[in-house]
Amino acid sequence: MNAITAFEQSLLADIPLARAMQLRVDAYRDDELTLAAPLAPNVNDKGCAFGGSLASLLTLAGWGLIVLRLRTLGRDCEVYVQDSQMRYLAPVWEDFSAHARLADGETWSAFEAALAARGKARARVHCHVPLAAGGDACTLEARFVAIARP
Amino acid sequence: MNAITAFEQSLLADIPLARAMQLRVDAYRDDELTLAAPLAPNVNDKGCAFGGSLASLLTLAGWGLIVLRLRTLGRDCEVYVQDSQMRYLAPVWEDFSAHARLADGETWSAFEAALAARGKARARVHCHVPLAAGGDACTLEARFVAIARP
Repeated sequence: MNAITAFEQSLLADIPLARAMQLRVDAYRDDELTLAAPLAPNVNDKGCAFGGSLASLLTLAGWGLIVLRLRTLGRDCEVYVQDSQMRYLAPVWEDFSAHARLADGETWSAFEAALAARGKARARVHCHVPLAAGGDACTLEARFVAIARP
Repeated sequence: MNAITAFEQSLLADIPLARAMQLRVDAYRDDELTLAAPLAPNVNDKGCAFGGSLASLLTLAGWGLIVLRLRTLGRDCEVYVQDSQMRYLAPVWEDFSAHARLADGETWSAFEAALAARGKARARVHCHVPLAAGGDACTLEARFVAIARP
């Protein structure tokens, strides 16, 4: 079982809401993690995607980006979200996916150096949900902290 | 059936994730709306409250505050969240509730005047999840727009 399948299975096993959303890992390559969810279990009263589902998928994509990087490095850390800014730009009437990558100005080398030096590191992550017709449905920028386990 | 019960039933009927979270309306008085959820269906991999559940409950509390006000006024509007800033301050190891009220500097009279004049109005809402031991687990400030239905 590879790291991606293991990550998806742990999300679904540990987080009941991830199961309710029918979340899956779509891709992890080129320093970008993509999580996907079908529309049906994630609708709101209008029949488009519920803002809470979008926020959850975006935040989990950002969190997963850090977690998977740490697993690649063989570092055992707890990863927490500290704060986030979300923009809702257009409604989502289709199955959707959340793409996460480091925000502009952030580097993995700085993150890893901080972790090695202090056992703690922060990173800002940029996440977005693209629409099939082009443009983004929503964006989220979030700051995460990783703390090495004793 | 009063407006609060009707609101809770519509949330649970229309939003599958609200059912998965076992959301309920806790109180609506003095211009504050409180939504509550049990911890068990809302845990993360660490066993405390999942950030997506917290973000969902906070956003729904803010949205509901506007929706219930509009119902009291007899105004038929669509209400959308536009953007939000969330801060995660402490983990939640207990059942939790999200409290929503207008943000500092906002007034219902300005909101209602804009809606009457232009058929559209915006309001910023401040939401927080208090901890039983004191202090907040997280806060969310969000901007909503209400648009009168033709």
